[in-house]
Amino acid sequence: MENFTFQNPTRILFGRGAELQAGAEAARHGSRVLLHYGAGSIKASGLYDRVCASLRDAKAPFVELGGVKPNPRLSLVREGIRLCREQKLDFILAVGGGSVIDSAKAIAVGVPYTGDVWDFYTGKAKVERSLPVGVVLTIPAAGSESSNGSVVTNDDGALKRDTGAECMRPVFAALNPELTFTLPPYQTACGAADIMAHVMERYFTPAKGVDFTDRLCEATLRTIIDTVPRALAEPRDYDARANILWASTIAHNDLLGTGRVGDWASHMIEHELSGLYDVAHGAGLAVVFPAWMRHVYRNDTGRFARFACQVWGVEPCFEDPERTALEGIRRTAAFFHQIGLPTTLKELGVPQARLAEMAHKAVWRGPLGNFRKLDERDVLEVYRLAG
Amino acid sequence: MENFTFQNPTRILFGRGAELQAGAEAARHGSRVLLHYGAGSIKASGLYDRVCASLRDAKAPFVELGGVKPNPRLSLVREGIRLCREQKLDFILAVGGGSVIDSAKAIAVGVPYTGDVWDFYTGKAKVERSLPVGVVLTIPAAGSESSNGSVVTNDDGALKRDTGAECMRPVFAALNPELTFTLPPYQTACGAADIMAHVMERYFTPAKGVDFTDRLCEATLRTIIDTVPRALAEPRDYDARANILWASTIAHNDLLGTGRVGDWASHMIEHELSGLYDVAHGAGLAVVFPAWMRHVYRNDTGRFARFACQVWGVEPCFEDPERTALEGIRRTAAFFHQIGLPTTLKELGVPQARLAEMAHKAVWRGPLGNFRKLDERDVLEVYRLAG
Repeated sequence: MENFTFQNPTRILFGRGAELQAGAEAARHGSRVLLHYGAGSIKASGLYDRVCASLRDAKAPFVELGGVKPNPRLSLVREGIRLCREQKLDFILAVGGGSVIDSAKAIAVGVPYTGDVWDFYTGKAKVERSLPVGVVLTIPAAGSESSNGSVVTNDDGALKRDTGAECMRPVFAALNPELTFTLPPYQTACGAADIMAHVMERYFTPAKGVDFTDRLCEATLRTIIDTVPRALAEPRDYDARANILWASTIAHNDLLGTGRVGDWASHMIEHELSGLYDVAHGAGLAVVFPAWMRHVYRNDTGRFARFACQVWGVEPCFEDPERTALEGIRRTAAFFHQIGLPTTLKELGVPQARLAEMAHKAVWRGPLGNFRKLDERDVLEVYRLAG
Repeated sequence: MENFTFQNPTRILFGRGAELQAGAEAARHGSRVLLHYGAGSIKASGLYDRVCASLRDAKAPFVELGGVKPNPRLSLVREGIRLCREQKLDFILAVGGGSVIDSAKAIAVGVPYTGDVWDFYTGKAKVERSLPVGVVLTIPAAGSESSNGSVVTNDDGALKRDTGAECMRPVFAALNPELTFTLPPYQTACGAADIMAHVMERYFTPAKGVDFTDRLCEATLRTIIDTVPRALAEPRDYDARANILWASTIAHNDLLGTGRVGDWASHMIEHELSGLYDVAHGAGLAVVFPAWMRHVYRNDTGRFARFACQVWGVEPCFEDPERTALEGIRRTAAFFHQIGLPTTLKELGVPQARLAEMAHKAVWRGPLGNFRKLDERDVLEVYRLAG
């Protein structure tokens, strides 16, 4: 097990009506709030009205900025920064899924920074300060509600880039499973792939002697595998939705990565897809992850065999561990297919023509991953395996 | 799943040399430190010198108070409070196991309180403020290094009582697995029973639909069951010690209790033992917990059957779930015996004569537990089953 520092101070407010606490929590950390959200769905559902009422009850003045799109755009982030400065806003309340939260985090680090916020995403500057961010979550997927990261897409160059810092963890996250009842099946499934990917990026590690976190990862993966089909069959199953929601936060709050380095190549390889083609991040991961697995499993066949047994219930074959490992990969892809996700680039509508360009862009900071280091050629091979 | 609020901001510094960061971390939160510890073992091992050096390096002046005993005493807590007030100390650094940490927490809440600190433990007053506490942990067991609780024993009446508040969570905990290499086998085993008890108190809940935390609990229990025999066989096995140490913190940082009410009757029943007879808390739990299980399992045989299958690998018998449930209880007791713990009150040296008195004292605040409510007669029956 490797040395680590772990601290996650995000206050989790979980359960029915959790969003009604948002105003009071926001008022504990700020005096003027930017209310940040995406499309009109939160207005149609009544969530918007409830959050506004809780802000008014807490006597927290607020200014609105809606219009966040999936794969949130830098232009709106810049608009939010301008708005916060003009209106002297000192707290960002994100109401939505990962894109809204990531956009909120970008605004929060941009406000106290004198340079251009994109500097943090290109590696030109390091995040040192952030306005406090609070979250009312509507989609269990990205884990951004208690993570230290943010992913933003540059409008001009179709560059999807990430940054992170401990001060970027939201100060609170209100998680009400009922808010996820109305998620379309495809979004529920995309969320499942994203959650599982967050765990698998940590699971496939070169670190040894990390049995405890291995088991916590396996427990989280089995939870998604068990509950997502239940939620798809019965969208208003509170307990299924609640288990998915809590698992989605734990999957990416860094507990499961303690004592081990993660891989993260699949996320980087996927970012090129969803940056260029605006495909849902989870759908992209469902295509990329099994392809990545097939490309790298021989680096530690034993770990993939364990994954097959402990996550998918494959019977261990110690005479031919490769067979066990491959069966686990097959079941991973089959599960994504079963819950309605694409499993090939073709299904995603990504043309073969630009794969080489994407592979080139993916390695802009150097080789990807830790389980196995991938250069541009490897990345191209993963794209090809993702056919 | 039940509504919950979860926030655990304790900063975990994990790995080789973690204790060397204690001084700098303490200096972030306080200006004058009370260095609190137990017996001379930390001096013999060199840990004391390393911690003092790190305090000096951080230019943090400190005053010492050693002498904490297992089942920490109120008299020493009062001495610590006096010392902090006289010397204007504003940070408590606990170096040791659960008893030292619990004593440190009691001092920390006593200093800013105008009444008698024992008020917090008798329920006469509620903790609202605390000095910050930091920890260098030497024994994986109590989980006090990131918990919100403290247990102290009154010297006069042999009353062992607990209190808790969110502000009592330590601000940091330095966890170095190497510091646990020299733990005697009996203490390693007592720690294992304490860790497992913390998980089982949460696992045996009347809450339904909490599959995710069920699985996290099972993962944690299997980690202890797998690693403790390895650590007993090879006390310097770093990875075994590291997995035990991290699992011990997670077992009691409240993550595993999210969305579910815990039971805690076994802890209360055990406190009467260790308050009166000064037996190790873990040894007392190894005796009490299986007896409690035998008394209550019929309240939810299915949950005990799941425990047997998922934790102990018992084959499920759906025709006779009681058989499966009982086999899980048998294996729990057998494991405690296997790692060298007593499994009866007789082995603990507790005479039958005072059981009725202990049962009477145990229910002083009312019936115990949530999985099943236990009155005085039930508690006496658990003591009898613990023979």
